[in-house]
Amino acid sequence: MLYFSDQELDAFLLEDAYRGDLTTHALGIEKHMGKMVFKRKQAGRVAGVEVARALLVKLGLEPVVHVEDGADVEAQTVLIEAEGKAEQLHTGWKAVQLVLEWSCGVAQYTAEMTAQVQAENPNAIVACTRKSIPGTRKLATAAVLAGGGHIHRAGLSETILVFTNHRRLYEEPDNFAAQTSRLRQQAPENKITVEADSLDQIEEILKGEPDIIQLDKFSTEEVSEALALVTNSGQSTILSVAGGINRNNAAEYAKTGVNLFITSAPYYAAPEDIKVIITPL
Amino acid sequence: MLYFSDQELDAFLLEDAYRGDLTTHALGIEKHMGKMVFKRKQAGRVAGVEVARALLVKLGLEPVVHVEDGADVEAQTVLIEAEGKAEQLHTGWKAVQLVLEWSCGVAQYTAEMTAQVQAENPNAIVACTRKSIPGTRKLATAAVLAGGGHIHRAGLSETILVFTNHRRLYEEPDNFAAQTSRLRQQAPENKITVEADSLDQIEEILKGEPDIIQLDKFSTEEVSEALALVTNSGQSTILSVAGGINRNNAAEYAKTGVNLFITSAPYYAAPEDIKVIITPL
Amino acid sequence: MLYFSDQELDAFLLEDAYRGDLTTHALGIEKHMGKMVFKRKQAGRVAGVEVARALLVKLGLEPVVHVEDGADVEAQTVLIEAEGKAEQLHTGWKAVQLVLEWSCGVAQYTAEMTAQVQAENPNAIVACTRKSIPGTRKLATAAVLAGGGHIHRAGLSETILVFTNHRRLYEEPDNFAAQTSRLRQQAPENKITVEADSLDQIEEILKGEPDIIQLDKFSTEEVSEALALVTNSGQSTILSVAGGINRNNAAEYAKTGVNLFITSAPYYAAPEDIKVIITPL
Amino acid sequence: MLYFSDQELDAFLLEDAYRGDLTTHALGIEKHMGKMVFKRKQAGRVAGVEVARALLVKLGLEPVVHVEDGADVEAQTVLIEAEGKAEQLHTGWKAVQLVLEWSCGVAQYTAEMTAQVQAENPNAIVACTRKSIPGTRKLATAAVLAGGGHIHRAGLSETILVFTNHRRLYEEPDNFAAQTSRLRQQAPENKITVEADSLDQIEEILKGEPDIIQLDKFSTEEVSEALALVTNSGQSTILSVAGGINRNNAAEYAKTGVNLFITSAPYYAAPEDIKVIITPL
Amino acid sequence: MLYFSDQELDAFLLEDAYRGDLTTHALGIEKHMGKMVFKRKQAGRVAGVEVARALLVKLGLEPVVHVEDGADVEAQTVLIEAEGKAEQLHTGWKAVQLVLEWSCGVAQYTAEMTAQVQAENPNAIVACTRKSIPGTRKLATAAVLAGGGHIHRAGLSETILVFTNHRRLYEEPDNFAAQTSRLRQQAPENKITVEADSLDQIEEILKGEPDIIQLDKFSTEEVSEALALVTNSGQSTILSVAGGINRNNAAEYAKTGVNLFITSAPYYAAPEDIKVIITPL
Amino acid sequence: MLYFSDQELDAFLLEDAYRGDLTTHALGIEKHMGKMVFKRKQAGRVAGVEVARALLVKLGLEPVVHVEDGADVEAQTVLIEAEGKAEQLHTGWKAVQLVLEWSCGVAQYTAEMTAQVQAENPNAIVACTRKSIPGTRKLATAAVLAGGGHIHRAGLSETILVFTNHRRLYEEPDNFAAQTSRLRQQAPENKITVEADSLDQIEEILKGEPDIIQLDKFSTEEVSEALALVTNSGQSTILSVAGGINRNNAAEYAKTGVNLFITSAPYYAAPEDIKVIITPL
Repeated sequence: MLYFSDQELDAFLLEDAYRGDLTTHALGIEKHMGKMVFKRKQAGRVAGVEVARALLVKLGLEPVVHVEDGADVEAQTVLIEAEGKAEQLHTGWKAVQLVLEWSCGVAQYTAEMTAQVQAENPNAIVACTRKSIPGTRKLATAAVLAGGGHIHRAGLSETILVFTNHRRLYEEPDNFAAQTSRLRQQAPENKITVEADSLDQIEEILKGEPDIIQLDKFSTEEVSEALALVTNSGQSTILSVAGGINRNNAAEYAKTGVNLFITSAPYYAAPEDIKVIITPL
Repeated sequence: MLYFSDQELDAFLLEDAYRGDLTTHALGIEKHMGKMVFKRKQAGRVAGVEVARALLVKLGLEPVVHVEDGADVEAQTVLIEAEGKAEQLHTGWKAVQLVLEWSCGVAQYTAEMTAQVQAENPNAIVACTRKSIPGTRKLATAAVLAGGGHIHRAGLSETILVFTNHRRLYEEPDNFAAQTSRLRQQAPENKITVEADSLDQIEEILKGEPDIIQLDKFSTEEVSEALALVTNSGQSTILSVAGGINRNNAAEYAKTGVNLFITSAPYYAAPEDIKVIITPL
Repeated sequence: MLYFSDQELDAFLLEDAYRGDLTTHALGIEKHMGKMVFKRKQAGRVAGVEVARALLVKLGLEPVVHVEDGADVEAQTVLIEAEGKAEQLHTGWKAVQLVLEWSCGVAQYTAEMTAQVQAENPNAIVACTRKSIPGTRKLATAAVLAGGGHIHRAGLSETILVFTNHRRLYEEPDNFAAQTSRLRQQAPENKITVEADSLDQIEEILKGEPDIIQLDKFSTEEVSEALALVTNSGQSTILSVAGGINRNNAAEYAKTGVNLFITSAPYYAAPEDIKVIITPL
Repeated sequence: MLYFSDQELDAFLLEDAYRGDLTTHALGIEKHMGKMVFKRKQAGRVAGVEVARALLVKLGLEPVVHVEDGADVEAQTVLIEAEGKAEQLHTGWKAVQLVLEWSCGVAQYTAEMTAQVQAENPNAIVACTRKSIPGTRKLATAAVLAGGGHIHRAGLSETILVFTNHRRLYEEPDNFAAQTSRLRQQAPENKITVEADSLDQIEEILKGEPDIIQLDKFSTEEVSEALALVTNSGQSTILSVAGGINRNNAAEYAKTGVNLFITSAPYYAAPEDIKVIITPL
Repeated sequence: MLYFSDQELDAFLLEDAYRGDLTTHALGIEKHMGKMVFKRKQAGRVAGVEVARALLVKLGLEPVVHVEDGADVEAQTVLIEAEGKAEQLHTGWKAVQLVLEWSCGVAQYTAEMTAQVQAENPNAIVACTRKSIPGTRKLATAAVLAGGGHIHRAGLSETILVFTNHRRLYEEPDNFAAQTSRLRQQAPENKITVEADSLDQIEEILKGEPDIIQLDKFSTEEVSEALALVTNSGQSTILSVAGGINRNNAAEYAKTGVNLFITSAPYYAAPEDIKVIITPL
Repeated sequence: MLYFSDQELDAFLLEDAYRGDLTTHALGIEKHMGKMVFKRKQAGRVAGVEVARALLVKLGLEPVVHVEDGADVEAQTVLIEAEGKAEQLHTGWKAVQLVLEWSCGVAQYTAEMTAQVQAENPNAIVACTRKSIPGTRKLATAAVLAGGGHIHRAGLSETILVFTNHRRLYEEPDNFAAQTSRLRQQAPENKITVEADSLDQIEEILKGEPDIIQLDKFSTEEVSEALALVTNSGQSTILSVAGGINRNNAAEYAKTGVNLFITSAPYYAAPEDIKVIITPL
């Protein structure tokens, strides 16, 4: 459960329905009673229902939830529905639909990608990056978790990942051992991850014995070579792959034996189709 | 210019860098001076720079803007850059990059789609819907405008568009003429748009003489037939096409002679690659 | 229904009762039970009840609503009431009373002005401008709608209205036809409204065939002349009157045959008297 | 100086210009340079300039302030002006104008009413109540102060005023002496004010020796009688008049010798006319 | 009752549980049902329960309140408890515990200090200053009131207290009489308090006949001398003591006969221990 | 650098100075020019200056910073100063002073405690918990960092720490090995920390080979025994001590050889004295 504040929920409603639905008002149907159902067109993973429910409650409705986040459903399954006045239903229709469509899209992608890598290794992990679409980090997090994915880093403030952009400002940019050593002393409760831009950095990085080396834009062959270097080093360092990892190539990377997949691909998944039908009561 | 409030800008920063960059702090490089440049990898349309600038200013930096929103640039063009302390640069790096990548992606898609339809008709308009990703409506609006696109409806509250979900709650759901007549009296300062779900509704809808009929998921053949019906009616009603209109099929639809293209495709465009390089000063 | 966010509602409460009612506390009556009724002193149109109810609910009360927004009541009618602890009642008393008094005042004025112009023409419309008191736009919108009025423009972002202040910055300030033509192409989903400052502009404006000409501070004679010019032109352009239109002169303007009345007068209406009586339980 | 937070200022801008000025955009004049001046049409007291300045700064402009809040000016005086792009000017025009018009209206009324009562007694005070229009308390406070008025109570939480609605929930509703005695012990740092609904309560109230008795809706004759009762009692209790005190009757009340005038009339003053002229640069 | 807005409550939750409890999620126990009880370890005064209840409700729980704010309880008393899913309980655990621990600590200190001074004089008052920890003013206010304390000044805006930092900017910094006289005329509804930095200012201050003289960092001997000066003056001025007044010295000050104790000591009280136990259902 | 949003900064100002300084206004000194200096009375560690500067800037001042956060200064050192109008200075005085006093207090305590443990082991770390005072987490974080301390956990969402309250809801509450194993697979990028309530749990916990065992309320003897158990196990698990660790006992614990000290003591440190002097210009 990710707790969404009232401000976060209201922002979803108000960006669309700032001062009500003019069409409903002008048609004079505001007080007409109706029923609104949200149906997932395709089979697949469900996400966004918890937020959808909270939004409908805020509009004074008493929604009935049929499927919880994280479940897999058949095509044409009704996820949630509510009865009320036209003005309530139409104020919420699109905001709720967008939350469901986008969340299901992200979760579906995450679930598919996870299934692919776990087919190679049941313990493989798909972990999503900080590269979410601006303003969507929290909703994206909820969707990734519903999809069975993990969060690589929620943000900048509680994890350690050394990028080249950090190293360049360090006194000795290429002294990976000194950097890792300092970080290990300064952050004993965090794992130390170092990003490698190319294969020839691996040996140098391994001298610092980081917990994780994140391989950025490595080919599968390079990943295999990097794994061999780690094995030869006798260290317990883990490798993760990042940079362009997605649904199309994840299985191939999984075959190298690496099982930590860092990706931002799910954030840009196509939204799932949620059909919204409002009928009179 | 879309004015972004301090709260809107801070939300972009804080969703990532809630309590600073731990890596920068643990490495002890907070006060080291550096320069950060944001470079658009591919040639194309620029968007997000105005917001990027505002974010960097909030971090106490004095960014230099090289390209304004709405311009087209060569590959590898630096859009904006700033000099400052590592702690300032690293706090803003990703938040600013995400704004630029996503905004440029939306703008690029919009610009390409616009170019396609305007190749058929220089007055053709690509207008983006309310189906934006939750929490992104305003940033999306700015990007669409930078891409040369238009906003179909900013929200529910100032435009009239009759969906079937409205009509079902009206006393006479299929009496388009009565509905349009009521709307015309109730909303004399708004255009009246009615969405048609199928070709056989067109004649009935035309009896109400709406300003616009929005054709939802019509094939190009059906669009042509609908156009013929309007022409025959002698009315000044405009047709727009919506529902699945995107970069792949827009040109084909443009050939029918319709020139108002309602789409949500740009919102789901792939982000453009923005390379961020931080170097010591 | 206009959805008010928790932040919007809390702002009404907290601007008055930031840290509770000191008098109730110092008297030691916080936990004494009481009943609070809100009574409209004069007969007339009701508004603000939906917001009043939401505010009382936020204080932990279970208010009973006796009259809905938009209804007309006799003098001395109780609109809403609630029972609870003195500390709850006194925290909400004034904030709720102010919402009701001001909303009823705006709605009453709107209703009276609407009745006057509809006595001349049943289809006449009173549409309120953007000139609301700072910080009150949304509450004002709700009150205007409850009064049977319309919203001329909710804001700057979704409607087109060309003021002289726009035209002066256009390449050809007085070329109305060029301006309207451009707008028609750029905003095919919006009506194009042009404000006329004086009678002698009408013919020039008509060349652009805008949807609406808004006559600013025209005398009734000038309105009649403008109407004649439109009739002679054979165009379907509508005229609206704006600038100083209020309850005292609207009927006179309605006699000219114009039926779109743009006004900000209701926003400055005197508040209606709402008597609040708290009695022990 | 009342400090307005960024959220408070942004709310003024965004309630009108949520997603920019569509007309400016559609006309293609966004980047055209212009100058915008705000001119007070009538002579009188100035207010709202400090907020106006802050709003224009937020839009990236560098406004020039010609007159400070609290000054009295001739008719047609320019209060503030700014140069910039059309998109900046048009985004701020109306929001700034509304702040100035309403603030000047409130300040003007306050100044006139103050002048009237001070003509009778140079130490007389006009103090404004909590009955401000919902959402305007802080802006109203600034305007009242600019008008030379005082704030009777900023809210519920820091002052003591016993209303009948309090007393009814007290164990002995009519035992004013017990109530005042308790309050004096409980709130030694506050003045104790008791509201009297009718003349026949005065003697009973005086037994408690409150600091102030607030006379609600007393005629001038009743005020005189109340003053005589206080004089006869030999106490140092002050009298204030409230309930319907306004610009039309304040002078008459001042003649009774009372010099504390509690009013909400300025909040409902007609706005002053502020002419806004945008010209090309 | 102090009304806490949704934003204020959400801030307590989100500063700790921004994106849920990772441990609960990774353990896979999110949906396991449990019961969470909050037990006050030591006997004493209770505070924070009203806010604790509101926080748990926001998480979708239905807490049972066993003790109300302001009560005194035995050691090991359960204050509040709730049943629900592990993800709800763990999201709220620490935020709620912190509110209770800190609030009880402040209230306990306030209650003890109040008991001490009231042992000397039953009407003595402990009034807490504006020197609260940044960001805690409102929660501190609620805790002080639950402890039987008073609020000296809620803030700057509704009370008058002349500090030396004010006087130095006044035309005649040491002319206390002129200052007090001006304030009495300008703020007839407020008590006038003047802070004295040393004993030798008292006679000069008394010339202005302020309502209260606040003695800053006076020894008990100096307080006694100041009291004698007031008595000799025959004025009704009250004395309060401030600056370093706390639980250790309040009784001694009370013996001087002064009965208004201004303090910020409770804000820095050690938190009370609240034991939180979560067990399976 | 921790970036504070405008909303966070404004909250510090507005909780005190909601509608300006009444005393300054009533004295008529608003526009008098003055200088305000903030002086640290005692020698020691400085914190809060970055926030102080930002607050003064928001009031329109141009503060001069003399000492940066994290520095150690002599007694009576001026940290920051500003010149401006009395109304600006008095609006900010107390809010800024409170930030400095509390921040310096927290930083000072952290610095002293760090010095003590580093006297035993130069690599020892003082890491502060989530048990901060409600509403102060971010300011506390900045102060801890300025004091040379570390953040144990910024919140619930990015670190793994298994409490007994978690374990009780797990299928096998005492199967530490199963729990740790699951966590290691589910959270490969995080260190796994398990809290031990008593010495007899250590061997069982070690079977899971967690990264860290957090010893809660262990005596120094028990810590030594636990260290021996770890050494004997041959594992690389680290021990940290928590629960009642503070400035008085940290050195003693450091002697056991443990060098990770988890504490909330700095949050409750007494505030440092910051003298604020305003003088005329």
